[in-house]
Amino acid sequence: MSEVFKRLERVSTGTREPLANIMDQAGWNDAGLIPAIAQQYDSGDVLMMAWMNRESLEETLATGWVCYWSRSRGKLWRKGESSGQMQILKAAHLDCDGDTLLLSVDQTGPACHTGRRSCFYVALDADGAQVDSDALIDPDQLYAPS
Amino acid sequence: MSEVFKRLERVSTGTREPLANIMDQAGWNDAGLIPAIAQQYDSGDVLMMAWMNRESLEETLATGWVCYWSRSRGKLWRKGESSGQMQILKAAHLDCDGDTLLLSVDQTGPACHTGRRSCFYVALDADGAQVDSDALIDPDQLYAPS
Repeated sequence: MSEVFKRLERVSTGTREPLANIMDQAGWNDAGLIPAIAQQYDSGDVLMMAWMNRESLEETLATGWVCYWSRSRGKLWRKGESSGQMQILKAAHLDCDGDTLLLSVDQTGPACHTGRRSCFYVALDADGAQVDSDALIDPDQLYAPS
Repeated sequence: MSEVFKRLERVSTGTREPLANIMDQAGWNDAGLIPAIAQQYDSGDVLMMAWMNRESLEETLATGWVCYWSRSRGKLWRKGESSGQMQILKAAHLDCDGDTLLLSVDQTGPACHTGRRSCFYVALDADGAQVDSDALIDPDQLYAPS
């Protein structure tokens, strides 16, 4: 764990740190990415997990429009830019060792590309798995050419 | 994305799938791991993110005591086995592409090794970072020899 996160373990509420120190020492993986969990700010529903690089995190903090790094497309992904289902940032937290982000967001409509509100719809138990939510919007409509 | 998760995208609530198909086709990374988000089942607070391999997930679903894979120690990590701060599983979900887990848990005391309830206490804004929660328990007591 890097110096700044080790030091922040023992400090009290209200202690501040320059953003550059945090960005320099966050736990970016070998691809320069950190997993980011998106949680609906009022309901508490966990909506999705995606990835951010430093550029996407800095843009998100500056603009308030959540921007991820798309690993499949290899470029910045402003959530909702093609589907219209945007995420507006309410708060962002790094965890104790600086390698995971929790984003409190206001999600328009479905967060999931399947049209469901949340990506977490495959419920597991000791015997099997069961889909436990339906789409809010037909996914063919979500990405239809306008 | 693997066949089973592609197929489940378009099915309705209640559709079931054998657990073995899910385990065989989940999006384990090159190290055989999937990130697992732990959320307190009643408050909705996101507590931490850790990693699971197939063995730890199967054990967790079978026993109801959340078991992760410790990357630093290279072994199964039954949450709370050294600190006493256990996590009891209430529900588990995989996401749409089968490569992230969301665990609904009942967490005893602090989830974080710093003694805080949640690991997400480094709040970020456009100007800097600020610690926004205090420890519930002195971390020196959390892992003290009994």
